[in-house]
Amino acid sequence: MNSIKAAIIGPTGYTGVYLIDILLRHPQAELAYLASHRDQLPDIRDEFPQLRGRIDDEIAQCRPIDPQAIAAECDVAFLALPHRAAMAYAPKLLEAGLKVVDLSADYRLDSQSLYEEVYETPHGDPSNLEIAAYGLPELFRDKIKDADLVANPGCYPSAAALGVAPLITHSLVKLDKIVINAASGVTGAGRKAAPHLHYPEQNESFFAYGKIGGHRHQCEIEQTYKRIAGKDVPALFVPHLLPLDCGILETIYLEPATDDVTEAELFEAFEDTYKDEPFVRVLEGMPNVKHVRNTNFCDVTVRLTQQGDNQTIVVFSAIDNMVKGASGAAVQNMNLLFDLPETMGLL
Amino acid sequence: MNSIKAAIIGPTGYTGVYLIDILLRHPQAELAYLASHRDQLPDIRDEFPQLRGRIDDEIAQCRPIDPQAIAAECDVAFLALPHRAAMAYAPKLLEAGLKVVDLSADYRLDSQSLYEEVYETPHGDPSNLEIAAYGLPELFRDKIKDADLVANPGCYPSAAALGVAPLITHSLVKLDKIVINAASGVTGAGRKAAPHLHYPEQNESFFAYGKIGGHRHQCEIEQTYKRIAGKDVPALFVPHLLPLDCGILETIYLEPATDDVTEAELFEAFEDTYKDEPFVRVLEGMPNVKHVRNTNFCDVTVRLTQQGDNQTIVVFSAIDNMVKGASGAAVQNMNLLFDLPETMGLL
Amino acid sequence: MNSIKAAIIGPTGYTGVYLIDILLRHPQAELAYLASHRDQLPDIRDEFPQLRGRIDDEIAQCRPIDPQAIAAECDVAFLALPHRAAMAYAPKLLEAGLKVVDLSADYRLDSQSLYEEVYETPHGDPSNLEIAAYGLPELFRDKIKDADLVANPGCYPSAAALGVAPLITHSLVKLDKIVINAASGVTGAGRKAAPHLHYPEQNESFFAYGKIGGHRHQCEIEQTYKRIAGKDVPALFVPHLLPLDCGILETIYLEPATDDVTEAELFEAFEDTYKDEPFVRVLEGMPNVKHVRNTNFCDVTVRLTQQGDNQTIVVFSAIDNMVKGASGAAVQNMNLLFDLPETMGLL
Amino acid sequence: MNSIKAAIIGPTGYTGVYLIDILLRHPQAELAYLASHRDQLPDIRDEFPQLRGRIDDEIAQCRPIDPQAIAAECDVAFLALPHRAAMAYAPKLLEAGLKVVDLSADYRLDSQSLYEEVYETPHGDPSNLEIAAYGLPELFRDKIKDADLVANPGCYPSAAALGVAPLITHSLVKLDKIVINAASGVTGAGRKAAPHLHYPEQNESFFAYGKIGGHRHQCEIEQTYKRIAGKDVPALFVPHLLPLDCGILETIYLEPATDDVTEAELFEAFEDTYKDEPFVRVLEGMPNVKHVRNTNFCDVTVRLTQQGDNQTIVVFSAIDNMVKGASGAAVQNMNLLFDLPETMGLL
Repeated sequence: MNSIKAAIIGPTGYTGVYLIDILLRHPQAELAYLASHRDQLPDIRDEFPQLRGRIDDEIAQCRPIDPQAIAAECDVAFLALPHRAAMAYAPKLLEAGLKVVDLSADYRLDSQSLYEEVYETPHGDPSNLEIAAYGLPELFRDKIKDADLVANPGCYPSAAALGVAPLITHSLVKLDKIVINAASGVTGAGRKAAPHLHYPEQNESFFAYGKIGGHRHQCEIEQTYKRIAGKDVPALFVPHLLPLDCGILETIYLEPATDDVTEAELFEAFEDTYKDEPFVRVLEGMPNVKHVRNTNFCDVTVRLTQQGDNQTIVVFSAIDNMVKGASGAAVQNMNLLFDLPETMGLL
Repeated sequence: MNSIKAAIIGPTGYTGVYLIDILLRHPQAELAYLASHRDQLPDIRDEFPQLRGRIDDEIAQCRPIDPQAIAAECDVAFLALPHRAAMAYAPKLLEAGLKVVDLSADYRLDSQSLYEEVYETPHGDPSNLEIAAYGLPELFRDKIKDADLVANPGCYPSAAALGVAPLITHSLVKLDKIVINAASGVTGAGRKAAPHLHYPEQNESFFAYGKIGGHRHQCEIEQTYKRIAGKDVPALFVPHLLPLDCGILETIYLEPATDDVTEAELFEAFEDTYKDEPFVRVLEGMPNVKHVRNTNFCDVTVRLTQQGDNQTIVVFSAIDNMVKGASGAAVQNMNLLFDLPETMGLL
Repeated sequence: MNSIKAAIIGPTGYTGVYLIDILLRHPQAELAYLASHRDQLPDIRDEFPQLRGRIDDEIAQCRPIDPQAIAAECDVAFLALPHRAAMAYAPKLLEAGLKVVDLSADYRLDSQSLYEEVYETPHGDPSNLEIAAYGLPELFRDKIKDADLVANPGCYPSAAALGVAPLITHSLVKLDKIVINAASGVTGAGRKAAPHLHYPEQNESFFAYGKIGGHRHQCEIEQTYKRIAGKDVPALFVPHLLPLDCGILETIYLEPATDDVTEAELFEAFEDTYKDEPFVRVLEGMPNVKHVRNTNFCDVTVRLTQQGDNQTIVVFSAIDNMVKGASGAAVQNMNLLFDLPETMGLL
Repeated sequence: MNSIKAAIIGPTGYTGVYLIDILLRHPQAELAYLASHRDQLPDIRDEFPQLRGRIDDEIAQCRPIDPQAIAAECDVAFLALPHRAAMAYAPKLLEAGLKVVDLSADYRLDSQSLYEEVYETPHGDPSNLEIAAYGLPELFRDKIKDADLVANPGCYPSAAALGVAPLITHSLVKLDKIVINAASGVTGAGRKAAPHLHYPEQNESFFAYGKIGGHRHQCEIEQTYKRIAGKDVPALFVPHLLPLDCGILETIYLEPATDDVTEAELFEAFEDTYKDEPFVRVLEGMPNVKHVRNTNFCDVTVRLTQQGDNQTIVVFSAIDNMVKGASGAAVQNMNLLFDLPETMGLL
């Protein structure tokens, strides 16, 4: 079988280098094209010295973003551009005949108006917004397989979806009281230097950030819950920044649907949901971001606790924000788009 | 005025070295006696090389724990021994005429039976358990001033008490739905090497630990809430371990007492409660463990969020677990016991 | 072609888990047997939760170290036991017909008496000590290919050998004045918890350790230099411990052989030596342990500096101590032993 | 006695916040004036939230740099401005009658031409360059006491001077072969965000930087050695960046002056030199940056090693780059300028 030839549009961020690394190891994919929207087109090895010795000169040299030229050499394009920039290229890449996996937020929300409110810009490609598949294979595998355009989920939303889905589908929780306490490593904030991400500020540091209750990922999380539940599921999402490179841990607080839910039932819901999923590990012990580092796994566990007459369910969900939360999931989606084994290149 | 002469019983742990450091800088206190229960009595500078050049030879050399000898030279004894060990010495030190500040958990819970259940050992000194003052000056200052024995609060409970007290006293929250999501630096786990605290295991790591909903600090937190509220306040406390040395951040989720609570009212409650407190800073922005590092401050802020028809209050409370969470608070209590300005040596 | 079937003896240390990870990704090798000398034979996934979902139950369960049973199922055995323990098993594994790659120090020194002095124990297998190949392919590839027993080099010695070999072979340096200032991440100290490796002691810390000028790796370094130079090359090796997980950087100070050596000549020596080596990258810029993390690369560069009338050559050599410094090199050696492409599974 | 009133010019960098912290604790100094050259004059508590609750409103608000106004309220001015900016203000502050401690490099080199070559700018105040005292009290105490302008030493040069001075004064080393392998925490690179100091780049990282053999601190180090030796002492200085906040460790390689130097003699030289110095600790064990953290100490030790027929002296010298390497030393110099006990506010 011929290798899938892959292009990366916007490879100079952290999602780019993770994509490159995964594709270079993938047995049936070939990194064929790096395209940058910078004026000075870089050799990717100058951006990421760790790539030297692993990538050929002609591929390492970034080229302009020319959809026709990319389509002439490639089967799939990964859009690793910032939000708002991706939607300018996706339609052209699709028209040129490429499959597209977009790692930005531009096609994640199915509501154009919500997108425009949250990202504070008109959506430039509403027709594709409607047909894009939301790229969380564990929940929406069939739609992804048939898609041309996959919207790769946000990192926080991936952990939040996998951590709560079994409880919704098994009707074990109330749908109006979900609190997601989340913490992420600093790669999640991107590669651009900023004063609060300067090493001496961020090292030995821990804090919540952003507008509490108003983070952009909150509505993406709620959208997934709504798709599963069939009705509105408002959630509170509170992100924190950890002094480490990669990893997300979400500690999710929920109320049981009824008084007689047992912890065993909760576990059964998780095990039932994920028994055939290669990338979700239902643990008895506690998930740790270090144990999913550099992997495409999501580790989850669940506890039922008692406070006086009340009960609280606590879910723990851990992923590597750069792998299952971004570039690993993108390759998992590519595998689905091209009928490859879903775990290929990812275990 | 003469200096207060202070002894530290059990100075070889992290609370010990922080106490020594603070006392050496204190203008009206003098570190006079180090007493260890080890067979081989160490020179404290061999345990903590950072203390070399700051402490005299005769003080640096640990001596046995002899209450009479200590009382002959000192006014106050800090018990920095592990839980269960402290209660064997406190009564003898009190009988010898010393004021005692105990940094262990042995006198924190006012219920003997609860202590015995939680710490799984008979309490050896129930009469002092009854009369010990709980050493959180911001809430219980008057009782501390009159006490001979002060039970220094746990680190997590200190941040949890200061973060919630204003909301209880101002009747702004429901008392049956409090969730405390907490994260601590590794010094909070003590100085004893353990496999999961080995550097390569703990570095780049983040996880929840212990029995979820069953941590020993949960009942100490509930006890304080009950004292303020005048009735039972069950709480869920979930601790996590951060890859950093010092600092606790608690993100606390509560429900407003009524539908018409405003964020401004929440802030007013905090500002009203803490306007004269030198060590509590009510912030508009987000508390960060790095901004309280090596200080006796507790930084707090509060937010009101909306999820569909529901509202959730979120409180953020940060301390240095070794200072306001342990040795700084202990010196603050010493200042109260001896009618010194409460901030002396701590700003 | 059939896969090479591999056993790991002593898989519960850090070299073990790195070996497992690399072998699980290797296209022509198969992890077939885990053998432990513990009384309680662990499931390796309980030791390393990150391996869950990647390894079959029957392989994950460690078995006793039974050379005959191992040989019945495997082609090669990796000895990942501590120094002194490995030499008890190597001869039996060889006799049973296995190829053996030993990651301990037991077969690295060709002098029995030096081994016995440095490791303070009689050598239990002197006949194999004589015939073992020193497993640094870049310098001793031919001997490795023909060997049955490969002594995998120490982590520090690997970086020291690759950083200096071109200068010796090109007669560019004096052989009696080599200073190796080295720094390693904490995984290099092993997985066993120890007070000075407790997280709060090691975090935010940096110090030299051991007997300065008397580290065990110094004589291994000198042995390699001597093999290249054909005469004694005394070196001073000074190791430091870094507050990070993985990575070694050696900053090596040498004197040029003559006054007229140029920096260009130094670079040419490196480029000439390593032009066909897939795992050595000669850089213009500075090697950084982060850029070799999780790779089998050694990054090197060289500078010529002037102090008054004197000149000093400075070499910088970086590896990941767990990959090129241990388990990656071991698989590189396995590839050579079985005539596989040397980079297979390692890029 | 009245307090010394102190101004800080340029308080928004890391040396500024350390100065503020030390002065706020100092029993005989008072922080009286913060002056900034920014257009938007900040409240220092917005720059450094950790200062809230410790500093009065009127002091916290930065004012313009007006030498007359500063002199009207203060006795001493600390210049915490960048190199090149400080020399524009120092003469005016001196003329206004203030004592000045400059933490920049502008008055450290006594040669105008060397300054202009190294800092690539004309020196705007050559007359004061000539008379400034080099502020390393352990070596130049008398000159500092009589000075009006003190050039606070560089961080690396302080550790390098204290680590080698005893060996030069006791004629124990050759003066033409000194190699200083240095490593610093990231605060040493300043507070301005930069791509290579972005948290995910710097975390888990270690590398040498700058022009090897051409760092600006090298000539400052050589100047100090020359002052002690009375003749040129060329040195090679190679700095590395550590993944931690604060701390410098220098590992210094020297050759003994003669063959019969003993390690005991080396120690005697250190002990003899520093026996009355409150801030230099001569250790038997290894200095660790963590053990000098937040202190004004320099920890040093020395070893004599043998390589074949040659011997190498190795010195280890550790300081906190922000304290003994900057703001602590500045306050030590202030104490000297005003006849206060030298350790006041620093132990």
